[in-house]
Amino acid sequence: MSLTEFQLINTFFKNKTKLRSDVLLGIGDDAAVMQVPDNYHLVFTSDTLVQGVHFDDAISPTDLGYKSLAVNLSDLAAMGATPTWFGLNLTLPNVDDNWLLAFAEGMFSLANNYHMQLIGGDTTGGPLTISIQAFGFVQDDNQLKRSGANVGDLIYVSGDLGDAAAALTCSDKRLKQHLFRPQPRVELGLQLTDIATSCIDISDGFAADLSHILDASHVGAALDLDDIPMSQALRECTKEQALNFALTGGDDYELCFTIPKQHQFILEERAKRLNNKITCIGVIQSQAGLFDAKTQKKIQLQRLGWQHF
Amino acid sequence: MSLTEFQLINTFFKNKTKLRSDVLLGIGDDAAVMQVPDNYHLVFTSDTLVQGVHFDDAISPTDLGYKSLAVNLSDLAAMGATPTWFGLNLTLPNVDDNWLLAFAEGMFSLANNYHMQLIGGDTTGGPLTISIQAFGFVQDDNQLKRSGANVGDLIYVSGDLGDAAAALTCSDKRLKQHLFRPQPRVELGLQLTDIATSCIDISDGFAADLSHILDASHVGAALDLDDIPMSQALRECTKEQALNFALTGGDDYELCFTIPKQHQFILEERAKRLNNKITCIGVIQSQAGLFDAKTQKKIQLQRLGWQHF
Repeated sequence: MSLTEFQLINTFFKNKTKLRSDVLLGIGDDAAVMQVPDNYHLVFTSDTLVQGVHFDDAISPTDLGYKSLAVNLSDLAAMGATPTWFGLNLTLPNVDDNWLLAFAEGMFSLANNYHMQLIGGDTTGGPLTISIQAFGFVQDDNQLKRSGANVGDLIYVSGDLGDAAAALTCSDKRLKQHLFRPQPRVELGLQLTDIATSCIDISDGFAADLSHILDASHVGAALDLDDIPMSQALRECTKEQALNFALTGGDDYELCFTIPKQHQFILEERAKRLNNKITCIGVIQSQAGLFDAKTQKKIQLQRLGWQHF
Repeated sequence: MSLTEFQLINTFFKNKTKLRSDVLLGIGDDAAVMQVPDNYHLVFTSDTLVQGVHFDDAISPTDLGYKSLAVNLSDLAAMGATPTWFGLNLTLPNVDDNWLLAFAEGMFSLANNYHMQLIGGDTTGGPLTISIQAFGFVQDDNQLKRSGANVGDLIYVSGDLGDAAAALTCSDKRLKQHLFRPQPRVELGLQLTDIATSCIDISDGFAADLSHILDASHVGAALDLDDIPMSQALRECTKEQALNFALTGGDDYELCFTIPKQHQFILEERAKRLNNKITCIGVIQSQAGLFDAKTQKKIQLQRLGWQHF
């Protein structure tokens, strides 16, 4: 093959983001060296996307580059963190210049939106696998956790649910957009740190991810199923199954969070200012499990969400 | 498959390391939250090992778990950093309990030697790929870099070179030990921060990695080839090729570093206290390139080291 690892990094990945003053040593040494400001904590997350498991040839390299970073930003959003840096471990079956250019373009377009700097990583030969590490800052103990939801708290979700999962069986362009170009809710997450009692990003499916909040908080939920936000495209394409996609489909990358009732007004105001759709879909209750608020019955689902194995 | 990702993490990876007080939120949320002490900088590195590329069935899962973390610790060592935390992205073709137990045992045995806490990661299905991220601290601007070598500085390497590469063609147990169980030189790296002018870990091959120091420092090197440290096993197994393995073989995970001559005594004293073999193998000169100090001729190598593609 023509390019060494160093040439590949220099050509496609070095100096494609603005330099940040808190990165003291970036790409090109044995490790990166960074500074975390006093009174801030470091937030770290990492997600792997494997060809044939998390994506196939239907996604363009540009969208794949974008999405690989976006899913990690979604985790930072769920913590209420400000994105700062990211690392990239890229395993490639071969070196295809056009593919790499397009992948890098998608990834860096999102990185530059958030002033994130690429600080390092590793490129190796092998089956196409993308592992991205994302870093952010939260002020002191201001991070959003999964634990902390209290009885009586309102349960909210951002955006619409189920589109990405439906896109796998339905070719509607609007659904594909959600699958290939998820919008990490970073700004919304930042607006939640002082009012939300818990937060998670919806990646495995709404029911599965809400259940993580409920388990971590030792509570249950009563849901208004009529209020679950679903796009017009989802309702049109998958009439019968729309609610099922919304409740259990993966890859949404919306936020699910809880707030005490007294913060409802300020929350709605903030979301409006951000132009972020949010929907109240239920309330936290003491009895464990997911319940239909209308019938008071336990919601029966064949599966809660995406199984990794 | 029987285990969900959460059960898998809880069974094999959660709470297998001592909890550190600087980890505010570890495994089990959308992201981890950590604290970096005032006056310290964060050091971050990440390496990926792919089955069929970086290892094959000859390595036991225990050794693979150990080595996956060790190669990252070697990068921290080259920065003079104190190891603190690590993340694990594991892509598995299937869930094999015995394999996972053995892999985790090897990884955590090394992690616990250095009081490192596992803070998160991702487990997915797919071709066996291990991506580990390692974190450490350096005091203020005390990190070791590749740039900084000055004309007249002595060039040192730790341990013996070439064993790991030779082990691929020669079945000697002593060589295999170097390939499967590299010793990251963390303690030595920590003893270099105030005396070394440059440092790198030897992973791609000595000549390639020393060349990174030379390029970054805009200098060259005159080497005493008779002094290149080689094990008895290497000399016995690969008589003709021994020097070639030592100069260009990958996977050594020793340190190569430069010090001003006036620090030679203190360096040798410190290495002796650590019981770390170190060898002076040359001197930095102004003329770029690698030279044989005896003949004054440029050293001709077919390849400098490991090519990633």
